[in-house]
Amino acid sequence: MATTSTRIAIIGSGTIGLSFAALHLSKNPICRVTIYDTRPDIQDYVSEHLSGYLVDADRASCMDRLSFAKEVPEAVRDADIVQEQGPEDSDWKVSIWPEIEKHAPGHALFWSSTSGIPASEQNRDMQDKSRLVVVHPYNPPHIMPLLEVVKSASTSDGVVERTLKYWRDLGRSPVVVHKECVGFVANRLAFALLREASSLVTQGVVGVEDLDEIVRASMGPRWAVAGPFKAYAAGGGEGGLQSFVDKIGATIQNCWDASDVDARKGNIRIGESWQHDVCQQADRAYGVVNTAERDRKTRKVLEAVQNG
Amino acid sequence: MATTSTRIAIIGSGTIGLSFAALHLSKNPICRVTIYDTRPDIQDYVSEHLSGYLVDADRASCMDRLSFAKEVPEAVRDADIVQEQGPEDSDWKVSIWPEIEKHAPGHALFWSSTSGIPASEQNRDMQDKSRLVVVHPYNPPHIMPLLEVVKSASTSDGVVERTLKYWRDLGRSPVVVHKECVGFVANRLAFALLREASSLVTQGVVGVEDLDEIVRASMGPRWAVAGPFKAYAAGGGEGGLQSFVDKIGATIQNCWDASDVDARKGNIRIGESWQHDVCQQADRAYGVVNTAERDRKTRKVLEAVQNG
Repeated sequence: MATTSTRIAIIGSGTIGLSFAALHLSKNPICRVTIYDTRPDIQDYVSEHLSGYLVDADRASCMDRLSFAKEVPEAVRDADIVQEQGPEDSDWKVSIWPEIEKHAPGHALFWSSTSGIPASEQNRDMQDKSRLVVVHPYNPPHIMPLLEVVKSASTSDGVVERTLKYWRDLGRSPVVVHKECVGFVANRLAFALLREASSLVTQGVVGVEDLDEIVRASMGPRWAVAGPFKAYAAGGGEGGLQSFVDKIGATIQNCWDASDVDARKGNIRIGESWQHDVCQQADRAYGVVNTAERDRKTRKVLEAVQNG
Repeated sequence: MATTSTRIAIIGSGTIGLSFAALHLSKNPICRVTIYDTRPDIQDYVSEHLSGYLVDADRASCMDRLSFAKEVPEAVRDADIVQEQGPEDSDWKVSIWPEIEKHAPGHALFWSSTSGIPASEQNRDMQDKSRLVVVHPYNPPHIMPLLEVVKSASTSDGVVERTLKYWRDLGRSPVVVHKECVGFVANRLAFALLREASSLVTQGVVGVEDLDEIVRASMGPRWAVAGPFKAYAAGGGEGGLQSFVDKIGATIQNCWDASDVDARKGNIRIGESWQHDVCQQADRAYGVVNTAERDRKTRKVLEAVQNG
């Protein structure tokens, strides 16, 4: 639990904004949250829905620390953090940041929850472009720990560090994304799997429900405990990821070649130069993976799903 | 717990064979397991390693129900199930099944644990090709619930049904794969994500360890609870998967187009004909997804990883 007396302005409060408000209020018990949203019934809307997001929290305390603002200047005036989840519209975002910048304290952090409009585009008309960073959640953020912290080339290191510290203090998992690539990282990975899944279903290999069951009974629980590189490094035993690729590489390449969504293949092929760096990084990060710990945690995860 | 007095012959007992032996012995408390393996120290090897696989089981009872055979005919003579995990070598597998068929009882099920040599290739010299089916585990099978039951065109429905029943009685998750595609399904999906992951790391978007953390804090726990189609159907609210694709489709296509591992794209594009069938299947399977249940189970999974 963090104990920072932080004032947070939530700009735009649909489901993501509400979920973030609940996250701040419940995990940071002395923060204050101010919500700004253009919908006229925003107070009723929040009163009706917020408590559903406040599981295991002191609801009365959370509601006491929540207020509303009718205008952006009022919402951000005392803010330590301004967190934006307005429309996914570049013009709107480009226009809101100079207004926020004009009225917010000089030390305030500026976060956008966008899933695709990079800070380098949103910051166009700001005086100080170094203040803005994307903090992209995995939906819903009051449940899912991930926050992708996507820097623009202008974002200052100090802003990134303070952003990471805030989320780590709340027990979340902020991860810095170093390049503003399309879709950031989590969606790129998930959509790559979705494409292969859609292709296999379309070919009649397996139905939608059975495909889901396959994932739920294998890589889901596995990756809840250890991400794909660590999981495969474990599969390589003492030789780590390099051993795994040496052993299984032909099968991996066969799978990539069989993928019928692609007529022609790109740079990631088994045996080419990318492998060395990826395997070295895995080796430095993990050494020999403790599979006993992995298996113990995996059992707990499977029990949690079954009994949850 | 199953209560079938089954006799199981394990042909080939490396790590997968040992893990399967442990699974049968611990989950099916009155089965008997006979191990055949060519290594001369097989009894010492099993004695040394098997108990590590027998978590939460009555070890003495398990060891009492385990025996060894020096030859294939002896191993399979009384078997109700013959489960093969020998070398991943087509010639070896083609030659072993006629020998097994000759000596095993007529009712015995024949399962191959291969990760890539389909039953239609392994069954070439069998008298009755309908008896063989691939039962591909997700490693290690004594922990991971998934079993991909991959039929050849010759595999009989009865064999598939008895195979499914055995595993369901043991509380596992057998799933029928209807076409013998390269790599079957789980590896195809996981390797598609691995390729995108390797590409993003190679481009310097994110490091290996941070990429693993992204998966561990987002789609890992999500997919432990609900597979990708169900998860995205939940994201579509009352309109299900179709609504999700309508809302997010442009972002998905942008991610697919940005994927630099492919120079040219295939049949799975947003807005094309495959979508209709996939969305209809999801709709029939899930209707409106209960996100409260999903969120409750996801919290339990995250707690299990943190405290496990």
